[in-house]
Amino acid sequence: MIKAGIIGATGYTGAELVRMLSTHPDVELTVITSRQYEGQKISDVYPALTGRSDLVCEAFEPDTFCERVDIAFTALPHKIPMGIVPDLLDRGVRVVDLSADFRFRNVAAYEAWYQPHTAPELSETAVYGLCELNHEAIKGAQVVGNPGCYPTTILLALVPLLKAGIIEAEGIISDSKSGVSGAGRGLSLGAHFCEANESFKPYKVDGHRHRPEIEEVLSLAHGSDVEVTFIPHLIPATRGMLSTIYCTLAEGKSEADARAVLASTYAGRPFVRLREAGKMPDILHVQYTNFCDIGLSSDSRNGRMVVVSAIDNLVKGASGQAIQNMNIMAGLDERAGLL
Amino acid sequence: MIKAGIIGATGYTGAELVRMLSTHPDVELTVITSRQYEGQKISDVYPALTGRSDLVCEAFEPDTFCERVDIAFTALPHKIPMGIVPDLLDRGVRVVDLSADFRFRNVAAYEAWYQPHTAPELSETAVYGLCELNHEAIKGAQVVGNPGCYPTTILLALVPLLKAGIIEAEGIISDSKSGVSGAGRGLSLGAHFCEANESFKPYKVDGHRHRPEIEEVLSLAHGSDVEVTFIPHLIPATRGMLSTIYCTLAEGKSEADARAVLASTYAGRPFVRLREAGKMPDILHVQYTNFCDIGLSSDSRNGRMVVVSAIDNLVKGASGQAIQNMNIMAGLDERAGLL
Amino acid sequence: MIKAGIIGATGYTGAELVRMLSTHPDVELTVITSRQYEGQKISDVYPALTGRSDLVCEAFEPDTFCERVDIAFTALPHKIPMGIVPDLLDRGVRVVDLSADFRFRNVAAYEAWYQPHTAPELSETAVYGLCELNHEAIKGAQVVGNPGCYPTTILLALVPLLKAGIIEAEGIISDSKSGVSGAGRGLSLGAHFCEANESFKPYKVDGHRHRPEIEEVLSLAHGSDVEVTFIPHLIPATRGMLSTIYCTLAEGKSEADARAVLASTYAGRPFVRLREAGKMPDILHVQYTNFCDIGLSSDSRNGRMVVVSAIDNLVKGASGQAIQNMNIMAGLDERAGLL
Amino acid sequence: MIKAGIIGATGYTGAELVRMLSTHPDVELTVITSRQYEGQKISDVYPALTGRSDLVCEAFEPDTFCERVDIAFTALPHKIPMGIVPDLLDRGVRVVDLSADFRFRNVAAYEAWYQPHTAPELSETAVYGLCELNHEAIKGAQVVGNPGCYPTTILLALVPLLKAGIIEAEGIISDSKSGVSGAGRGLSLGAHFCEANESFKPYKVDGHRHRPEIEEVLSLAHGSDVEVTFIPHLIPATRGMLSTIYCTLAEGKSEADARAVLASTYAGRPFVRLREAGKMPDILHVQYTNFCDIGLSSDSRNGRMVVVSAIDNLVKGASGQAIQNMNIMAGLDERAGLL
Repeated sequence: MIKAGIIGATGYTGAELVRMLSTHPDVELTVITSRQYEGQKISDVYPALTGRSDLVCEAFEPDTFCERVDIAFTALPHKIPMGIVPDLLDRGVRVVDLSADFRFRNVAAYEAWYQPHTAPELSETAVYGLCELNHEAIKGAQVVGNPGCYPTTILLALVPLLKAGIIEAEGIISDSKSGVSGAGRGLSLGAHFCEANESFKPYKVDGHRHRPEIEEVLSLAHGSDVEVTFIPHLIPATRGMLSTIYCTLAEGKSEADARAVLASTYAGRPFVRLREAGKMPDILHVQYTNFCDIGLSSDSRNGRMVVVSAIDNLVKGASGQAIQNMNIMAGLDERAGLL
Repeated sequence: MIKAGIIGATGYTGAELVRMLSTHPDVELTVITSRQYEGQKISDVYPALTGRSDLVCEAFEPDTFCERVDIAFTALPHKIPMGIVPDLLDRGVRVVDLSADFRFRNVAAYEAWYQPHTAPELSETAVYGLCELNHEAIKGAQVVGNPGCYPTTILLALVPLLKAGIIEAEGIISDSKSGVSGAGRGLSLGAHFCEANESFKPYKVDGHRHRPEIEEVLSLAHGSDVEVTFIPHLIPATRGMLSTIYCTLAEGKSEADARAVLASTYAGRPFVRLREAGKMPDILHVQYTNFCDIGLSSDSRNGRMVVVSAIDNLVKGASGQAIQNMNIMAGLDERAGLL
Repeated sequence: MIKAGIIGATGYTGAELVRMLSTHPDVELTVITSRQYEGQKISDVYPALTGRSDLVCEAFEPDTFCERVDIAFTALPHKIPMGIVPDLLDRGVRVVDLSADFRFRNVAAYEAWYQPHTAPELSETAVYGLCELNHEAIKGAQVVGNPGCYPTTILLALVPLLKAGIIEAEGIISDSKSGVSGAGRGLSLGAHFCEANESFKPYKVDGHRHRPEIEEVLSLAHGSDVEVTFIPHLIPATRGMLSTIYCTLAEGKSEADARAVLASTYAGRPFVRLREAGKMPDILHVQYTNFCDIGLSSDSRNGRMVVVSAIDNLVKGASGQAIQNMNIMAGLDERAGLL
Repeated sequence: MIKAGIIGATGYTGAELVRMLSTHPDVELTVITSRQYEGQKISDVYPALTGRSDLVCEAFEPDTFCERVDIAFTALPHKIPMGIVPDLLDRGVRVVDLSADFRFRNVAAYEAWYQPHTAPELSETAVYGLCELNHEAIKGAQVVGNPGCYPTTILLALVPLLKAGIIEAEGIISDSKSGVSGAGRGLSLGAHFCEANESFKPYKVDGHRHRPEIEEVLSLAHGSDVEVTFIPHLIPATRGMLSTIYCTLAEGKSEADARAVLASTYAGRPFVRLREAGKMPDILHVQYTNFCDIGLSSDSRNGRMVVVSAIDNLVKGASGQAIQNMNIMAGLDERAGLL
C-alpha cells in the first residue's frame, strides 16, 4: 500500500482527493491537513464523506507529515506550494502539486502572470502532468505540476493535431466554459447562487492565467510560438468544463486525418474517448469521471474545423488527473481508484 | 406623483423595489441610499437596471432625504430601522419597513427572537402590512411593518380559515420551502452555488424567527394562543416560496367549506388566486409576480386538510407587498406598478 | 386601442405574447387560437396567466378572426404561416410572423434549409423585423418576418461594424449559447430535465438553420458574400442567449472605433445597451426584458476582437421584438408594453 | 463471479444498474435487454457509459437470457415483471424486481392501486427488499421486491421507532420531495426542463401509489393499521429525495430515546448514517451514493418530533438498493460495488 497525504484537504479539489483516495485499492490516505479546519473531522466539513473517511484535519508540520507519507498532494493556493515542496522532496516524499507553481518550464511566463518564483530550479525538473501525453516523464518525476483544468481540455485536443501538422498554428480560438466549482469554495459574489444560477457570461476576457500555460505547451509541441485566443465562460452547473476550439485545417488535411491522429494517439489510453463522427461531447457524460471526451466537426466550405473537448473540472481537470499522475509515478495501473 | 425613497437599495429587496418603482405610473423614485455602494450608480451594482434607473446611491442623511420624499421604504437589516424610523415620521415621511422591527404587536416576542426594541411605542401604532387582510388599517398607517415572506404564505392561507372556525387551532404544521434569494445577497457558504445547487435541505429546524411572527398573527385571529410547527427548507431555485400546511378540519367542516371561505375572503382581491379543486400551486406560476396562489386537498379517511400556498419571496414576500402597501396608504389602485 | 390576435398562442412564444400584451397600454388582445388547446382557457394551459387573461383558445377561422383584429401575430411552426398570411393580408390585417417563413429575401436560401416556399412573392415585400436596424422599413410593412433569436444577437452586434468597415468580413465565428426554452414546449429527450440540467453541449454543429439567415443579412450589409462559422450550444437555464463572436479588426481600426460605431448606431435606441469597456453581458441582466446587451474586448497582440451579445431568447429573441415591431408598425412608442 | 442480467436496461434505473455493475468486483454483467433500443450499444443510448460497458441491448428471450445469468434485475414498468418473473424462477434464476409487482404482501392493496395481479402466489414468498430491516429474509429469497424510493426514506426512519414504541402511530405526516429523475426517462410536460427548472410543487396530493406500500410496512411493524398523510413534491434537481416526517413522541419518550433506537438499529449497517443532534440531511450529501442520512429534531413545547431522511432516489431508492439486495442474496459483502 502506498501511503498518501493531502496538504490542503478542505477546498473542493482537496475534498475530491479524499473522496477518491478513500476507495483507492492500492493507497492508504494517512494524513490530511487544513489551516482553516484544524482539529475537525473531514466529515464535519463535508458531511458527504461521513462513513468514507474518519480523518481529522491537522496543521501541516513537515516532520510528522513526511513520516507517514510516500506521496503528497498539495491542493493549495498558488504561491504556497513552492515554499513547501522543496522541503517535502528533501525528505523523500514525491509530490503532485495541483497549483500552477510547477506547471511552467518558462519561469518568466509564470512570474508575469502569478508572482516571483522562489523555487525556479525545481521548475526545470518538474514534469507537466498531462498524463496521456507525458506518460514516460511522469513515471520518474519527483514533482509533477498537475495541469490546469482549461489547459487539460485544450491540450488533449490540440497537441496531437499540431504535432502531426494537421492544423495551422495560427488563429486558434478556444471558447471555453466551466461549471462554478472551478472557482473554488471561497466566497465571492460571482459564486453566490443567485448570481450564478440562470446566468451565463464570459469572464476574464482580457487575460486568464491559463492562457500562458496553454500557449507554452502548444508552442513546445509546435516548435515555435503559438498564440491562442482564449475566452472562458461560466456555466450554471456545479461540475463540468467544455472547450469549443476553432482552428484551420492545414493544406491538404481533413477532418478524417484529424480523427485518425487522435484515434492513434489515444489508442489504449483509457480516459480519452473520441466521439464518432456526427456526435459531440456533453459535460453530462463526463461528470464524476476522469474521462475526457473529444468530438470533431469541419466546414467543407472553408477548411475550418471545430474540436470540442469536455471533462469534469474537479476530476480530470484536477483531482482525478492528480491521482492518475500518482498511479503512473507509483507504477500502478493508471486506472486504479478512478473507475 | 408620489415621491418615494429607498433606504438600503442594494440588497435583493432594495434592488427589487428599484426595479418595480422605476416603472410605477404614479411614483417617482427620487433617492436611494446605500452605505456599501455610496457614490455608485445602481446600474453599476445591478447591471440589469441599466436603462431603467440612473440613480446614484447616496449615504443616508435624514434632512436631505426627507426633503425629497413622501414615503420611504426601509430595506435594511433588522435593528437598524427602529433607530431611523421615528425620525422619518417626525419629518412627516410615511414608512414601509421591510425588516422585522415593526411586525410585532408583542414587543416581548420581538425581543425574545431579535434584540431589545428601542422604539416600542411605535410597535403599538405600526400596522402589520398583510395587505389583503389589513387593508383598512393600512390606509391610515404612518408606519407599516411589511410581513415576512414565510408568514405571508402561511397567514394568507390560514387566517380566514381559523377566523371562520373551519380548521382546528391545534396541530398546525407548515413545511415551508424557499428559493435561495430569501437569504439575501450577503456571502455565506450556504448561498454558494456549489452548496445550494442540486441541494435540498431543511434549516433552522430548532426555531426560525418567522415562527413567532406567524404565531402572533394566528393567535390574534383565533382569539387565543396558537402554536405552529414550522420547518423551513431551501430550494435550489433563485425565487419562489411554497408552504405545504397540514391542519385538521373542525368537526362538521369540509374542504368545500374551506374553499368557500377563502373564495369569499379573497373575492375582488387581485393578488390572491385560489386554485380550483384538484390543482395545486407551483412557484413557477408566481415568479416575478405579486400573486399568492392557494390550493386545497383533504383526506376523507381522517379529516386532515392540506393547504398549499406559493409566492415569489422577493415580490409578494417582500418588495411587491411593500409597494402594494404604499399603494393602499396613498390611496392608489392596489395594483399600480405591480402588473 | 389596437386590436391584436395571436395565431398559435400556446407555445412558449405565443404565451409570452399573451403575457406581455395583457398589460400593453395601447393594445387589446381580442383573440387567441390554438389547435391543441381549442376551447380551453389560456390560464388553464399556463396557470401563471390566471388573473391576467381570461381568453379562451379558439380554432383559427379567418373570417371571425380578422373581424376582431387589426394586427396578427403568427406564432406557428415554419411552413404554416406562409399558407395563412396571404389571406390575412387580403383581409386588411397586418402581420408579424415569428416563424422563418418571411425572414429571407433570397427564397432559394429559405428553400435549401426549410421547404418549398408557397408565397415567394410576399418574401419580396416582407420586411426583416430587426427593429433597431430596419426601423423605417418596418413602419410601412404589411408583413414583418420577426428575426430568429440567434440572428438577433449576432446581427445587432455585427451589422454596424461591417457596414462601417471596422471588421473584416472574413473569418467571423459565433460561438452561441441558448437557454432550453429556445427549443420550444414540444417534448423531446434533449429538453428532458435530467438530460438538460447540469449539462452543456454543442448541437447542430454541422449546420443550424439560423446560419443562412445570419449570412444573408451580413452579406447584404457588407455588399458581398459573408460566410460565418456558427456553433450553437445549450445552456442549463430556461431563458437567455449569448453569442461570443470572434472577428478581426480591419487594418487601422481599433476596439475604440468599434465602440464608437456601436454607440452612435444605438444612440437613442432604448433596447440596446452597450457595456462599458472592461464589462461584459450576462444573460442574467437581460432575462424577462427586451434588452440586448453588447460588450467588446480585443487582443492587442493580434488584432482579434471579441464581441459579446446577450438577449432573452423569448423576449428580444422572439415575442418582445415582435411587439416592438408592432409598436413601430402602429406608430406607437417603441417601448410601449415592453418595460 | 456471479453472472447478472438486466431486463429493461435503458431507463434511468436500468442504466444506473449498468453503471454500478460494470465496476462491481464480484459480478459480471452478461446480458442487458431493451425493447426500444434492441441492437444498439448501451453506450450509444448513454454516452456516459462509453468505455465502461460494451454490451449491446438484446430483445428479452427467456432461454438465452437464463443460460447466461444467475441473477436477474427486472427494471421494467409495473405489470410487466409479474408476467416474466415466474418463468425466470422456474429456470433457476433469482430475481430482484425494481417495480411494485412484488412489494406487497397484501395483494388486494396492490390491486387497488395498480392492476389485477397475475402471480399472487409469488407475493407470498417474495421478500420486501428493505435491506437494513429485512436482511435475514433477503438472504434466502428467490424474488425480492425492491422498495419504492419514497417508502425507503420513510420506512428506514420510522419502522424502528414504531416498533420500539417511541412514537405514536397516529397522525404521521410525510412531506416528501424528489428530484426529477424519479419520474423516469419517459417524455412528459412535467419533466420538460422549462417546466421543472426554477419550479417547486406538490403533485398527486390526492393519493400517490407509494402510500399503500408505506402503510403496509408500517402497519406490519406496528401490529395494527397505520394511516399516513403523504404529500410528494418535485425538486428542481436531477437526483435526490428527502422526506420531512412529522410525528408525535409517545408518552414519556424523548428525542434522545429516538436517537438511541436508531443508533442501535443501524449500528454496523454501513449505509444508514445518523446525523448528530443539531444537524440535518441534505440531498447533496447522498447524491451518487447508497447512503440514507437521517436527522432528528423535536419541539419541547408540544412533543412533536421531526425526522428527516435523505437518499439518492436512483441509488438507495432504486438501483443501489437492488445491488445491495443482490449482494445479500449472494452472500457477498453488502457494500460490494457500492462504494
